[in-house]
Amino acid sequence: MSQTEVTQFGEFKLIDHLTEAFSIHHDSTKTSIGDDAAVVFHGDQDLLVSTDLMVEGIHFDLMYFPLKHLGYKAVVSNVSDICAMNGVAEQITVSIAMSNRFSVEALEELYRGIKTACDIYKIDLIGGDTSSSQKGLIISVTVLGRQKPEKIAYRSGAKPGDYIVVTGDLGGAYLGLQLLEREKLIFLSDPKITPQLDQHKYTVERFLKPEARKDIISLLDRVGVKPTAMIDLSDGLSSDLMHICRKSGVGAVIEDQLLPIHPDSKALAMEFNLDPSVCALNGGEDYELLLCVDPLEYPKIQYLPGFSYVGEILPAVEGIKLKTGSGKEHPLEAQGWVHF
Amino acid sequence: MSQTEVTQFGEFKLIDHLTEAFSIHHDSTKTSIGDDAAVVFHGDQDLLVSTDLMVEGIHFDLMYFPLKHLGYKAVVSNVSDICAMNGVAEQITVSIAMSNRFSVEALEELYRGIKTACDIYKIDLIGGDTSSSQKGLIISVTVLGRQKPEKIAYRSGAKPGDYIVVTGDLGGAYLGLQLLEREKLIFLSDPKITPQLDQHKYTVERFLKPEARKDIISLLDRVGVKPTAMIDLSDGLSSDLMHICRKSGVGAVIEDQLLPIHPDSKALAMEFNLDPSVCALNGGEDYELLLCVDPLEYPKIQYLPGFSYVGEILPAVEGIKLKTGSGKEHPLEAQGWVHF
Repeated sequence: MSQTEVTQFGEFKLIDHLTEAFSIHHDSTKTSIGDDAAVVFHGDQDLLVSTDLMVEGIHFDLMYFPLKHLGYKAVVSNVSDICAMNGVAEQITVSIAMSNRFSVEALEELYRGIKTACDIYKIDLIGGDTSSSQKGLIISVTVLGRQKPEKIAYRSGAKPGDYIVVTGDLGGAYLGLQLLEREKLIFLSDPKITPQLDQHKYTVERFLKPEARKDIISLLDRVGVKPTAMIDLSDGLSSDLMHICRKSGVGAVIEDQLLPIHPDSKALAMEFNLDPSVCALNGGEDYELLLCVDPLEYPKIQYLPGFSYVGEILPAVEGIKLKTGSGKEHPLEAQGWVHF
Repeated sequence: MSQTEVTQFGEFKLIDHLTEAFSIHHDSTKTSIGDDAAVVFHGDQDLLVSTDLMVEGIHFDLMYFPLKHLGYKAVVSNVSDICAMNGVAEQITVSIAMSNRFSVEALEELYRGIKTACDIYKIDLIGGDTSSSQKGLIISVTVLGRQKPEKIAYRSGAKPGDYIVVTGDLGGAYLGLQLLEREKLIFLSDPKITPQLDQHKYTVERFLKPEARKDIISLLDRVGVKPTAMIDLSDGLSSDLMHICRKSGVGAVIEDQLLPIHPDSKALAMEFNLDPSVCALNGGEDYELLLCVDPLEYPKIQYLPGFSYVGEILPAVEGIKLKTGSGKEHPLEAQGWVHF
């Protein structure tokens, strides 16, 4: 396959080339790439903005992270931040810097993933640029979303007595990463060995192709539930719950036995000699949502698929605790992913 | 001076630490750092969004670029993009990735520059994060601005007969960079030689501490002039004019003799054996504005300081031309800065 040098394109032509296939989903997107700034109309709703910088070797390893998946995940992780506000993501900007080892074809693959996510999540790419880097690939994404002021869910709204609910299942992305890291080491020691990933397709996909829970935001809207507080599980349940507790000035208790863990994740945890609950508590990048819900509202979602009650918000003096199956309580410690 | 390792801070504490001194300038900034997304209220105005990625070794050289200036310029160059839309910049997000050779003190210095620019330009820092990089410093800035839909100046609005007007003077930033590069080479060959920069303070500052022409946007508003098209001069006059011509479907003629060039820039160009006009045409990063103005509107700004008539928009068939002092016309070629 022939590879085109990035230098064959000018800076402006390259971004035109990479983004020409994108379509516009919202009437509100009045101008996107091609001017000094993108123009987005906003009426009586609040604008939501979030930004993320992903650096090769720090946030991702291209040895097992396909570029298309990486582009997809870069969008998803940002959309997830807007979901976490109970908002709807509508626009993104994407800037890329990459060393000269990347070909145009490699960038196209990355942008194919970005476009796939944009199409699925109905996001308009409205800006960004590409440039060189001295080393590796750097992806910077900013996402804009909107919501009516009264519907936005902040981290600061949790109150004692609220139920703590999580969506989907937890720990899968972390275990998928462990598996990929193990297979990478095996491959590096003997390139003739083919990585064994088929058996654990579910967990590997949790890491390589996560989804933002936009469906949950729609569902909450339909059933008329506004979480008192919400956060997306990107750093890990312990760490993310602590953000809620700190911002809301509350404590919390999580029940170990109630953590939703997928059977594949459990099996893989066993294989790695890891406690599945620890993976669910401290593994990040699942991009599920943690909601705090008023008990009076809870019946509206109680029997819907995809929601799991995992604990309760407590007064601040109670601290943040984990209750085990035997009924014992331990202080919960945040051991989320740290990128330093 | 004692240096604090970045690793002594957690990811969240570091950004808290770096941003705690920032103040909020707009009532519309309802939530900034500390939640999944920032919340900004927008009424009947359009939101303007622009983003920029600056990579060490590609966009800047820390050997002569002080970190505080770098932070300042990162904000200014983004604010300039909003000015170029005839808009008012109000919020930014700033994400930083840096290798472990950077100390907390170095980051503080960078953020001091960001804060200075935020205070001067009345910008609210509403988000961003910090992480590691494998090599060097990477700065990603996204800026948000606003303007009434009917007042926004696009690149696409120029029409034949419009006057082409530039603000301030041109070529200074490029010449300042040449001087810094020369003094760097001299210093590297013999570290005992002190760089000679005092004589050319003006041009060096044009490069190291540019300003966005927010004052021009206010002035245009006061005198009631809306440019038919506008762009900021970040890549160089030739290159930036071509963007206007391409988007508007027009040609243009620039008169060599009318290009505003500062005496210090002229002197320095002579020292480097460079044609000052070529520096003014192709040197970038001056962050001045290029306006296309209806001739009927032009008298409103004609005698105001800081505006220079430099040419006229022509029908597309005429191409993009440079008219020299002798009256000869040459095709104008874009040789702006390319970051590849």
